[in-house]
Amino acid sequence: MAIRYELIKECKQSGARLGRIHTPHGTIDTPIFMPVGTQATVKTMSPEELKEMDAQIILSNTYHLFLRPGHEIVKEAGGLHSFMNWDRAILTDSGGFQVFSLSQLRKITEEGVSFRSHLSGEKLFIGPEKAMEIQNALGSDIMMAFDECPPYPAEREYVEASTERTYRWAKRCIAAHQRPDEQALFGIVQGGMFRDLRERSARQLVDLDLPGYAVGGLSVGEPKELMYEVLSYTTPLLPKDKPRYLMGVGSPDALIQGAIYGIDMFDCVLPTRIARNGTTMTSQGRLVIRNAKFARDFTPLDPNCDCYTCRNYTRAYLRHLIKADETLGIRLTSYHNLYFLLKLMKQVRRAIQEDRLLDFQNEFMLQYYGSLTPQTAF
Amino acid sequence: MAIRYELIKECKQSGARLGRIHTPHGTIDTPIFMPVGTQATVKTMSPEELKEMDAQIILSNTYHLFLRPGHEIVKEAGGLHSFMNWDRAILTDSGGFQVFSLSQLRKITEEGVSFRSHLSGEKLFIGPEKAMEIQNALGSDIMMAFDECPPYPAEREYVEASTERTYRWAKRCIAAHQRPDEQALFGIVQGGMFRDLRERSARQLVDLDLPGYAVGGLSVGEPKELMYEVLSYTTPLLPKDKPRYLMGVGSPDALIQGAIYGIDMFDCVLPTRIARNGTTMTSQGRLVIRNAKFARDFTPLDPNCDCYTCRNYTRAYLRHLIKADETLGIRLTSYHNLYFLLKLMKQVRRAIQEDRLLDFQNEFMLQYYGSLTPQTAF
Repeated sequence: MAIRYELIKECKQSGARLGRIHTPHGTIDTPIFMPVGTQATVKTMSPEELKEMDAQIILSNTYHLFLRPGHEIVKEAGGLHSFMNWDRAILTDSGGFQVFSLSQLRKITEEGVSFRSHLSGEKLFIGPEKAMEIQNALGSDIMMAFDECPPYPAEREYVEASTERTYRWAKRCIAAHQRPDEQALFGIVQGGMFRDLRERSARQLVDLDLPGYAVGGLSVGEPKELMYEVLSYTTPLLPKDKPRYLMGVGSPDALIQGAIYGIDMFDCVLPTRIARNGTTMTSQGRLVIRNAKFARDFTPLDPNCDCYTCRNYTRAYLRHLIKADETLGIRLTSYHNLYFLLKLMKQVRRAIQEDRLLDFQNEFMLQYYGSLTPQTAF
Repeated sequence: MAIRYELIKECKQSGARLGRIHTPHGTIDTPIFMPVGTQATVKTMSPEELKEMDAQIILSNTYHLFLRPGHEIVKEAGGLHSFMNWDRAILTDSGGFQVFSLSQLRKITEEGVSFRSHLSGEKLFIGPEKAMEIQNALGSDIMMAFDECPPYPAEREYVEASTERTYRWAKRCIAAHQRPDEQALFGIVQGGMFRDLRERSARQLVDLDLPGYAVGGLSVGEPKELMYEVLSYTTPLLPKDKPRYLMGVGSPDALIQGAIYGIDMFDCVLPTRIARNGTTMTSQGRLVIRNAKFARDFTPLDPNCDCYTCRNYTRAYLRHLIKADETLGIRLTSYHNLYFLLKLMKQVRRAIQEDRLLDFQNEFMLQYYGSLTPQTAF
């Protein structure tokens, strides 16, 4: 097996669990947040900076790397770790989500998905076998099975057919996977917002005895309550001795709530995406650094943060850089936001260790959102 | 005096000199190249990275900081060093060049220049007193006298009147300068391409006994031979016991030739500007990393370079990042180009020490340009 999940302890106050994932590129403390490096780089960050903020695993996008520079080039470079100079763990997604959300003129058949590149317009095809070929070439520590992520809302009939196909695709992924001893293949539970479909999907995939499982098809526009409802009945169906990954989730409240439902891994572009617009996450809640009121504010972005940005720069300087479209501004806000979420997950792990994750959740929610039930997106 | 120039030795093979400038923020080895941090940041670089590459002094632009964030805010932050977290030396230009090249609807009178901000359209004014007020607020180690930089080509009559006014403005700058013990004010020799006007300007400014002198009005579109001709008769008119600064020059050939004419300081946006387009300076000459031939080139950008970029990344990866518009690509090429010029100046200083700058020039020109008389711009 390429990876091994070690369950350290379960929280006595919630469904959360403290664990470790041993990978060919180091050990990951879970629950963990994975910064997203779509195009073989976490936007604006160097590998050294990611290590400095204690990122243990990053995610990269199969669809993007397939299109550019092409997986063959990455393979020739010695794989993605070598190509991008990152010697810690990497998870690659399946390409499924991006094929559906980014490409043009896509056509889904049992075989896979035909589409036009959103970059060149070129006609391309990805199916389960191709997704495995690409990820085997990239050499990620954790690969994702090729799936379809149904939109929200979607008719039951559509979701059922799609989920069944995702299951058939998962079996083809297993058959096509060339490096199971070096790369762990995770299955993705789909089923939309339908409990019985989720249950069937989970049961089918668990029967395949894969080294880990993701809950997919959430955070696609549905209300958060609905996402939590699906999580509440889906996570318990997943094996305790394997890691569980909630895809595309990165708002502070959802990271904590996801951990409470027993999720071990999360990824999201949120921290770096909002950083590019000058929006930051601080111990006092969200802070939009562009605001005029920070023009003469010579205090750190977050007085309770000890990250590189907060130790060295003021709000006034960050505001100036962002307003002046200077890259350093985006570097500094990206650094801070990633640091904030990685630190949040450390706090979550400590709270699990101390059997007080629900208490921590209440404290954090009041501090960050000013409410136990936030109405904002993040 | 805010700064002190120490002449270490003169090259026996050329007019070059080895020296040191002692400033309130550290000592600078000359001849030196100054990276440009227009908006209180050297584009894409952190202060730590600039130190790592041994940048001893950077330049920042008075005009830009006056417009945004405004010099009063920088002053409240404790000055530019504190605002941008840079504790080494800073030189600020006078604002003159940018007022003429960037602003709109400018009108020059004896008093100064009225113009509209290229950012907001706001009506603004900078004259000698204002330029001093701004630079005193910024707190740079070296300030430049407010001048007009005549275009090329220009009629003798225009250049003569302009150069005389620049001289009168220099006297007003001296009178308005509030912090001569902490900030050194340099004069700028103008005179266009007219030898007698250059001589008169140099004589007049030298009589003012300023702590340093710049040669301005060069590298404004004239042929390089003409620039060298002006340098050849202007530099000898400047005092030996004070630093000499050639403004806006940063191509490798001109840095070496300028040093040969006795110049101590240079600045230019060239290394960072071309880096953003994927153009790099290497020991083998210019290299455009976007070129398709580098798609599968897994060697360092410059095999003879030991900078961070060349130690850690391949041409294939850099090409991918630049093609994918990823900021890290620009960071890595900017880092390399700045490192390259700072290292070139180290080599120039060593050659002066060894009385062989002309030999070094020949070796470098053949290696980099493949010719002793390059036909390219840089």
